[in-house]
Formats: sequence, structure tokens, C-alpha cells
Amino acid sequence: MQRIVVLAGGIGGARFLRGLQSAAPEADITVIGNTGDDIHLFGLKICPDLDTVMYTLGGGIHEEQGWGRAGETFAVKEELAAYGVEPQWFGLGDRDVATHLVRTQMLGAGYPLSAVTEALCARWRPGVRLLPMTDDRVETHVAVEEGGERKALHFQEYWIRLRAGPDAQAVVPVGADQAEPAPGVLEAIAEADVVLFPPSNPVVSIGTILAVPGIREAIAEAGVPVVGLSPIVGDAPVRGMADKVLAAIGVRSTAAAVARHYGSGLLDGWLVDTVDAGAVDEVEEAGIRCRAVPLMMSDPEATARMASDALALAEEVRA
Amino acid sequence: MQRIVVLAGGIGGARFLRGLQSAAPEADITVIGNTGDDIHLFGLKICPDLDTVMYTLGGGIHEEQGWGRAGETFAVKEELAAYGVEPQWFGLGDRDVATHLVRTQMLGAGYPLSAVTEALCARWRPGVRLLPMTDDRVETHVAVEEGGERKALHFQEYWIRLRAGPDAQAVVPVGADQAEPAPGVLEAIAEADVVLFPPSNPVVSIGTILAVPGIREAIAEAGVPVVGLSPIVGDAPVRGMADKVLAAIGVRSTAAAVARHYGSGLLDGWLVDTVDAGAVDEVEEAGIRCRAVPLMMSDPEATARMASDALALAEEVRA
Repeated sequence: MQRIVVLAGGIGGARFLRGLQSAAPEADITVIGNTGDDIHLFGLKICPDLDTVMYTLGGGIHEEQGWGRAGETFAVKEELAAYGVEPQWFGLGDRDVATHLVRTQMLGAGYPLSAVTEALCARWRPGVRLLPMTDDRVETHVAVEEGGERKALHFQEYWIRLRAGPDAQAVVPVGADQAEPAPGVLEAIAEADVVLFPPSNPVVSIGTILAVPGIREAIAEAGVPVVGLSPIVGDAPVRGMADKVLAAIGVRSTAAAVARHYGSGLLDGWLVDTVDAGAVDEVEEAGIRCRAVPLMMSDPEATARMASDALALAEEVRA
Repeated sequence: MQRIVVLAGGIGGARFLRGLQSAAPEADITVIGNTGDDIHLFGLKICPDLDTVMYTLGGGIHEEQGWGRAGETFAVKEELAAYGVEPQWFGLGDRDVATHLVRTQMLGAGYPLSAVTEALCARWRPGVRLLPMTDDRVETHVAVEEGGERKALHFQEYWIRLRAGPDAQAVVPVGADQAEPAPGVLEAIAEADVVLFPPSNPVVSIGTILAVPGIREAIAEAGVPVVGLSPIVGDAPVRGMADKVLAAIGVRSTAAAVARHYGSGLLDGWLVDTVDAGAVDEVEEAGIRCRAVPLMMSDPEATARMASDALALAEEVRA
């Protein structure tokens, strides 16, 4: 049985995982989830990326939206606003609140986030082993100028309240340098047959996971194919604000630049979209095997083909 | 301006207060609310009686039901059940959750319950000053036999899960003996022109408030008329399980027995229902002035008349 480790952010990572399950139904998949987007609001601990993966693979996701629950209602959010409680920009759904209540209560009782995530997954049965990258608190902050003043905002505030409007001047995974990989993370990497980077944000999703000391090294030293899929298609992110945060770290928003940012020390293979076929040579010159295939996750079949292509490239690298 | 202090439980107390506001629109009303029914569930601090008063007087109550919010939904509760989280017998509404989140977060930040209640009332504008009886934790426990075993249950579990089915063998306001009256409680009593006991449960509502050291004494020594309304009509409680908990403390479920339980050291006047007119003499023999008037809060007008009758009896006592 093939053991696959996937580093996942939110929507893109979750959808890719569904394609991977379809492409490799027998595989043993471990997902290392980004927790840098986690936020404490209204006394609740909210883990957007873990929940997006859990809901998507567990059949509870709002399909069109890509995040949050299907059939969601917003009574709690409306009432909090009626009390004048800030912030009001976060899309807190009622069904989602129950997840956060269970999580918050378990964390308060002393369980680490990895144990809480396992408990939540006992309901959702996502068909993968979902691990937070760390049980420690990491919060991605984005430095922006607002009204002539430089401010560090929580990533969620930058993304949701400001819709990633202002340029990001810096992106800092606060606490990452002191964090330890959650139990099982390094073991899963060490035992993997292949490691995949879905077309997730290379800075605030996969980059944050790699910022936890030990994880990047474990992947680089695992001695197995590491294959990624470009989140940039035709010089623009397929979704989200990868361009904004790539600019903050001085990386151009091109499929080739992202591959070179990961580097051949980490990445063995890289898939770019067919519209970026011209980038294949540049990536290969950087020592990373590269193929151009369709990379739009427009439907489950297309997504499964992307996962198959990634696994095929991994075998090519291995051979 | 007449200053009225009212000791209030939940539904009965809240409805009476609405009648009192109608009967004495110019009065300055302070409500001392029972917190013995408070419960911690799902990491939330829930104060059923305070909320029932706040929602009823603030226009947010579910009118037919008497507790909870109008237009309430139950997505959070359904989801918690889907996670298998216990208990599942508590009727946690989505709108209500927002109140509990605000309260829990403020308590966690160090505000006392009295300050939290004031903050919540800033939205609801109940038209009274609502004070919890204490900022300290008090929990009413009910001892019952279940399956041959004697157990102490939280009052909410006895009332909601068991629907007050088993006989109550004892009722204990755990923590009351160590509790202090909340800021403003003793001052309000000392400055009152009249103190009213609505037709609330004499054991688990008004009895719990009186169990906080200092409150009973302050009322007895205030030197102003103290008038109550019988929650027992025709030897049965108008609503709730007063008969069960009265039996636990050895008091018969009659209008006269409840008046004598409070005693002439505390109570100056007592209203019984017209069907209990035969009890007037027994109450007056116990040194408590008594009148028989209609005591069914069947509509706002009837409730306002009850409040008027209570205030009239207070003036009679004072004269």
C-alpha cells in the first residue's frame, strides 16, 4: 500500500485531496494541515484549514463556496453583531460553531490539537489521517500599511476583512520557530513513499507548514519523491492571494518562480499548467523535473487526473 | 419615584415583572435574579433565569414557551449531538449561544457576572436593573433516587432531563453558604420602598436567592413592606415543579404553607388566588396580611392587575 503524505492548506488542498483519493483509492494518506490560519474569536478556537479538509473529505463542505458547512445558517453571528461584539468580518456559521465548541472545550480540558482533530475526525471519517502541523500555537501575521501606518494583522483579518487588498509587506508565521511538529508528523514523513504539495498557497499554507522546525528537513531527507503542483497558472493564482504574499517574500507569481522558491533541495518534481508549458525548461534547469498538464480543478475528474499526474511524475522521479 | 426590589426566578418571575412594569410604569425596579440554575455546558456559562428575565423584558423571548429566544434555531445543538457530545437534553438554541459566548468570554477575561449581565442588558434594555444574586458560583443540586441509587443532580438535569419525575429528596444550593451578594444587591434592598416575591418557585428560585448570606437579613431588616404572590393555586403549582421541591423540604404544596414557610419574620403580605380564599385566615393567623385575588398570569392585563394588587397590599401593610 502506497503511503502518501500531503501538505495541505484550505480549499485548494482539500479539493486536491479528494482528487487524490479518487486517483489512488488504496493509498494510505496522511495530511499535514496548516494551522497558521487558526484564530481565537469569541472565546472559540477556530482552525479554518483543518476544518476545510475535514468537511470536504467528510462530505460536510459547502461545495460552491469551498469552505464552511453545507446548509449553514448564521444566527450566532447575527446575534453577536447585535451585541456589538467585534470582529464582525469573520463568517462564523452556526454548524461550524459546534465544531469550535467541541474543539475549544477539549483544548481547555488539556487535550492537544492533534488529539482534538482526531476526535473530530471520528465523526467526519475523512478517509485520511489528518494531523495538524503542530500542537503549538502558530499565527500567521501579515504586515500592511493602513492609513499610513504599518500594522501586523492576523492572516484572517488580512484575507477576510481586507480581502488581501493592501500589499503584504511581510508574512510572519509567529511562533513557528518555537513550534514542534505534532505527534506523528515526522514519522509519517519518514515512512512515506511520496510527498505531495497540492496547488496550495506556497507562502501562507505550505510555507507555514515548512516553517515548523524539522518538517522541511524531514521531507528533504526522506529520500522519496517530493512532487508539487503549481498554484500559479498563467502568472496568476488560481484562487486566493498567492501573488500578494509571494511579492512580500520577493518571489514572482509564476509557476517557475514558485518551483525555484521551493528549490531542488526540497522538490523533485513540479507540475505546471499547459498554459505554462514554456516554464518547463526553466524549472528543469533548476534541477526539478517538470511536466505541463492541465491544472484546473474544475471538476472531480480533472482533479483526479492532476493527482494521477503528480503520482506518475513521482514514479518517473523515483525511476 | 417608588423603588421596588423583586426577587426573580425564570418564567413566572419574568412574566410578573412585565406586569409590574405595566402596573407601575414610573417605578425604579431592581431585579435580584436567581443564579442557582446556572450551568456550564460545552464550555459555555449559561444563566437561564437571568436570560429569561432579560429576554422577556427586552422583547426577545419565545412568548409561548416562556424561555429561550423567539425565532430560535438549533443547528449548534444538532451538530453537537452529531459529534456525540453529552448532554443532549439541554435546549441550546443558536441565538442563545451568542449570549453565552459573550458571557463566557467576558467572564474569562475577568469580569464578574454582575458586570457581564449589565453589558448584556445594554443591548436588551429590559427597563429594570437586573442583578445576579451573587457573582460567586452557586449551583442548585437535587438529590434523587435513580435505579436504586441516590444521586445529586444539577437542577437543570432534574428539571429538563428527568422532567422532575423522581421525588426530590433534598435540594441544596451548593456554594450558597460561601457566596456574597453581588454588588448593588444589599444597597438596592436597603433603599427599596417595597420588596416583592413574584409567584416563583419558593425553593429553587426565591429560596436560593434567600440562601445567599445577607440577603434574607437585609430584606427582613429593610423596614419596608415585603409582599409575595403564591405560586401555588388550588394546591398545585401554576407551572413547574414547586410541589416536588417543597416536599423535599417538608412544606405542603398549599398557598398557606408557602406563606408560613417564608414566615412573618420575612413576609408582611401574601396574595393567594381566589380559589384559595379559604387560606386567608390561616395566613393571617401566622402574622402575614393576606388577600385573595386572581393569580393566573393568563394575559398581560391579568398580570398587571396582580402586580397592582401586590403593590396595594404593600401600601395596606405600610399604613
